[in-house]
Amino acid sequence: MNSSLKGIIPPIVTPLINEEELDESGLARLIEYLISGGVHGIFLLGTTGEATSLSYSLRREFVEKACAFINKRVPVMVGVTDTSAAGLLEMAHVSKSAGADALVISSPYYLPISQNEFVDFLKNISPKLPLPFLLYNMPSCTKMHMSVETVRQAKELGAIGIKDSSGDLAYFYTLLDEFKNETDFAVICGTELFLPESVNFGGSGGITGGANIFPRLFVDMYKASLDGDLNKVARLRDIVIQIEKKIYNISADSSRYIESIKCALSVLGICSGYVAQPFSGFEEAQKQQMQVNIKELAEMYPELNEEISMLNSIT
Amino acid sequence: MNSSLKGIIPPIVTPLINEEELDESGLARLIEYLISGGVHGIFLLGTTGEATSLSYSLRREFVEKACAFINKRVPVMVGVTDTSAAGLLEMAHVSKSAGADALVISSPYYLPISQNEFVDFLKNISPKLPLPFLLYNMPSCTKMHMSVETVRQAKELGAIGIKDSSGDLAYFYTLLDEFKNETDFAVICGTELFLPESVNFGGSGGITGGANIFPRLFVDMYKASLDGDLNKVARLRDIVIQIEKKIYNISADSSRYIESIKCALSVLGICSGYVAQPFSGFEEAQKQQMQVNIKELAEMYPELNEEISMLNSIT
Amino acid sequence: MNSSLKGIIPPIVTPLINEEELDESGLARLIEYLISGGVHGIFLLGTTGEATSLSYSLRREFVEKACAFINKRVPVMVGVTDTSAAGLLEMAHVSKSAGADALVISSPYYLPISQNEFVDFLKNISPKLPLPFLLYNMPSCTKMHMSVETVRQAKELGAIGIKDSSGDLAYFYTLLDEFKNETDFAVICGTELFLPESVNFGGSGGITGGANIFPRLFVDMYKASLDGDLNKVARLRDIVIQIEKKIYNISADSSRYIESIKCALSVLGICSGYVAQPFSGFEEAQKQQMQVNIKELAEMYPELNEEISMLNSIT
Amino acid sequence: MNSSLKGIIPPIVTPLINEEELDESGLARLIEYLISGGVHGIFLLGTTGEATSLSYSLRREFVEKACAFINKRVPVMVGVTDTSAAGLLEMAHVSKSAGADALVISSPYYLPISQNEFVDFLKNISPKLPLPFLLYNMPSCTKMHMSVETVRQAKELGAIGIKDSSGDLAYFYTLLDEFKNETDFAVICGTELFLPESVNFGGSGGITGGANIFPRLFVDMYKASLDGDLNKVARLRDIVIQIEKKIYNISADSSRYIESIKCALSVLGICSGYVAQPFSGFEEAQKQQMQVNIKELAEMYPELNEEISMLNSIT
Repeated sequence: MNSSLKGIIPPIVTPLINEEELDESGLARLIEYLISGGVHGIFLLGTTGEATSLSYSLRREFVEKACAFINKRVPVMVGVTDTSAAGLLEMAHVSKSAGADALVISSPYYLPISQNEFVDFLKNISPKLPLPFLLYNMPSCTKMHMSVETVRQAKELGAIGIKDSSGDLAYFYTLLDEFKNETDFAVICGTELFLPESVNFGGSGGITGGANIFPRLFVDMYKASLDGDLNKVARLRDIVIQIEKKIYNISADSSRYIESIKCALSVLGICSGYVAQPFSGFEEAQKQQMQVNIKELAEMYPELNEEISMLNSIT
Repeated sequence: MNSSLKGIIPPIVTPLINEEELDESGLARLIEYLISGGVHGIFLLGTTGEATSLSYSLRREFVEKACAFINKRVPVMVGVTDTSAAGLLEMAHVSKSAGADALVISSPYYLPISQNEFVDFLKNISPKLPLPFLLYNMPSCTKMHMSVETVRQAKELGAIGIKDSSGDLAYFYTLLDEFKNETDFAVICGTELFLPESVNFGGSGGITGGANIFPRLFVDMYKASLDGDLNKVARLRDIVIQIEKKIYNISADSSRYIESIKCALSVLGICSGYVAQPFSGFEEAQKQQMQVNIKELAEMYPELNEEISMLNSIT
Repeated sequence: MNSSLKGIIPPIVTPLINEEELDESGLARLIEYLISGGVHGIFLLGTTGEATSLSYSLRREFVEKACAFINKRVPVMVGVTDTSAAGLLEMAHVSKSAGADALVISSPYYLPISQNEFVDFLKNISPKLPLPFLLYNMPSCTKMHMSVETVRQAKELGAIGIKDSSGDLAYFYTLLDEFKNETDFAVICGTELFLPESVNFGGSGGITGGANIFPRLFVDMYKASLDGDLNKVARLRDIVIQIEKKIYNISADSSRYIESIKCALSVLGICSGYVAQPFSGFEEAQKQQMQVNIKELAEMYPELNEEISMLNSIT
Repeated sequence: MNSSLKGIIPPIVTPLINEEELDESGLARLIEYLISGGVHGIFLLGTTGEATSLSYSLRREFVEKACAFINKRVPVMVGVTDTSAAGLLEMAHVSKSAGADALVISSPYYLPISQNEFVDFLKNISPKLPLPFLLYNMPSCTKMHMSVETVRQAKELGAIGIKDSSGDLAYFYTLLDEFKNETDFAVICGTELFLPESVNFGGSGGITGGANIFPRLFVDMYKASLDGDLNKVARLRDIVIQIEKKIYNISADSSRYIESIKCALSVLGICSGYVAQPFSGFEEAQKQQMQVNIKELAEMYPELNEEISMLNSIT
């Protein structure tokens, strides 16, 4: 698994018809779209995947179906972060049985937890995990920013990498430097705009929400970064900045990333835009705005237009 | 239920033998101790009850056994806060079946949630709740401080009260003032040291963790506050401040309230001191310190000594 | 000085005609009003006094004129908090020369400062201070919440008390307990609504902004608290809560406390409502709202009406 | 001035013999070192320059002497951020008289200030400024993170650029995008590790503290970024990461950046290591560690060794 931890690994949305029912055909379509876009792996049940909003039975069903659809074509990682060790281990075994390749673990997130308490927690659960695991640093949701020392100790306990979504640049560079000579540990970027630097300075790739909508764009940005093609990187990053403006900024909700990605996917006919409680999908006016904005983006950038056209060949 | 929402309602610990097993005899003993101490209600699966650390099956078993032991002698409230609406509703129905009287609900707590999103969430779930519900304002864990306007809207959606654990005094007084003429809405204090003011200015009582260890102390403080017996209040509050120093300050962990209450209960022979993952119980040296400190407290304050002695009559 | 550190000590506003000119007659009137209202001291150049917004020459002039008007009738404290030790010491000597009785010092507030760094800073400056000093805990402005250990060390360096404006109840009770047997150290409350508890549990009194507008109200609340007259305390606190609603909530600015107190004082004809840069006084519509609200308060509460009437005897 | 706003502009330290006295020969030496290192401008009295710790008379003297030593060889910017408009304007006029080229302004930083209040403040002071001004976004010290809309409004009020030290990558990219077609507005990076991306995506350069110690290193990194020489950028950034580790991490104080830069400069024989109150310079053991670490860095990287050798030619 470990050498496969690289490239663009979209944290996919969980397509839903309602609170209790998967949009199964939407899920199949999304997976085909991503794989045909060249993604290097798929991450299930992350923050963008609304993991914490779903019942355990729905999470289980989703992991099983997604793994079946993916069918070993790319590696699969499953987010099993939980406030309860029992819940985490249950989902870890579901993931193993479904054929996933790795787990992604953040700190328990209800009560504030210290660095030491988190390391002790990892000491307790890591021997019981049926699959390799990566860390997930996500302080805006978990209230805990993993120190480099904590990451180092987690590696000693078996962690094979970390996805950093802290948005803290100095921290990310420190991680890259700390593990630069350790090829058995992947440092993966969770901030879309920072993907090129991540790659240039030894990072393994990106788990970027926008790759749900435009997988090839991010794959191309990853490759251009690997190739040191600065001009191409600059052009593609411009597009990513426009996506930020045109797609993510339609709503000002704290949950707008999830809502806008799901809305964009529904506008593109890929899957349902339904968002699980406690949040909700876009309203009609916002959907229409999304339609207008995606059309504009496609007119401005031939790359996006082409990517969207690929959808025609996916049924 | 509504008129019963008053007095001291301990948020009881969940006595555990290990990650998966309840300390059933400890739970029975704790409940007898609390009821013989005169508490006015019991709150299951709050923050002190480690709700989020437990598997759903263990939560279910705990609610059922605790309700059976309590056997309608005092009203029972159950914390059903969850990141997932499905999980919340499942535990709500378990509570109803077990014979509980009310539910306690805080905001979903993984992704940051806005006031409006929380109100919308309540609009969706409140019609499906099988029991009356109270709000629980706990921003240090949920990252969301319920505005007075949000509390007002929640009342319109059926909330019968609020437990405030924000520690924000001005906010608490504003709540007391806002609902002072509405006898169908209870404002309950989650901060031990503020119980007397809470009662004096119209509050309904306190959900105070320390009442696990010294139920009568808090019941007496509640009554002295009701009676306006300032001298007695001052003396009892002095004791509570000493408890803060001698019992809660043995550890500096963020989880120390849970750990120290469980340790004190184990030192007193009431129930197991085991703390669920991701936290852990006190180490031997800390336990011995707890033993020494409780002895000291009992020597300093005859009230505490008497209260501990009551334990002899509980088997 | 030390035994005089008790009761109600209003943090007075700095009446201004414009950025550079004091409203001298307004200042004289305000001081007469406060002293006739029975206040136990006066605090110059605190947060409410806009100290940090004023030039040093204006601060100096203000201290000199205010001390002259007060003319030793009540003790005078001067806020000398500064980012620069030189600025702090300059204002300390101005205060001494003008006849003030004590200084009030918070931590330097531009760069975040640690507890140890602040204690070291106090070690350096305390021998150079020409007057006794109190601490001022104001984390919302200074980003530093003084630990009890820091306060203890400051006392060893000569501090004669602390004003706590953190709004953190558990902290305030810990301070009261820590220094309860030390009559040479005053613990003073900066939160209006908490004055009664402060007094009941050994606090020395309150530095409360609202006492600029209604000095007697706060003096009466202080006395009722000392006398243990709970009913009177409850009634007066109700009034203070209404003041919060009717006077402080007209604006939602972060600077609204200063703006609304100055506006109320101008509506009452006491002094100019001008607020120094970077903030600004109320607009016309807000002033009219203030007029209406003060009239309403005076009609609801005879105490306030009487207090306002006293103004007729002050020229 | 405006077209000169580019490249490496070190925020220079203020060399001090003690609280009240400049290390004048150290200042002269530092300026020669920086100019011979190829810097494109010099920034006086920033955060690294301890502006807020100094008396106004010392600030004035420093600006005058530094401008005299620089003698128009490179553009000079002066930080005039203040809690008081009067203090800000006084230093603005001092800067103009001394021959500086631009001012740098952050928000008043004692009371929390809103975006609107800051814009109103700029409306009031901008017509009175005798020199062009840049914004300085420094939320960790000022508690205020300037929104893009605020920056836009500031440009309309005359701002010619912004230095962003927020460390918030997505924000910085949004700024670059917002102003990419406006050549009269410079977006300058305050985070050392982000300089290359800043330059690649249209940023004007960096105000980087480390350039006090190794000016040529940063100038070279700036040029390599302009030239798109990715390999060189990667190598130089590796060095910057090592500087972070070896120089900035000797202390864990919040003031460690200032302390460590001053200590390094004193170890290199450039100027005094004295740090003004409320902070303090390194202790002997830390100084010795610094000496060892600088030697190590010079041995690892010939670039640094050469740069240090240049010092021999400066008297």
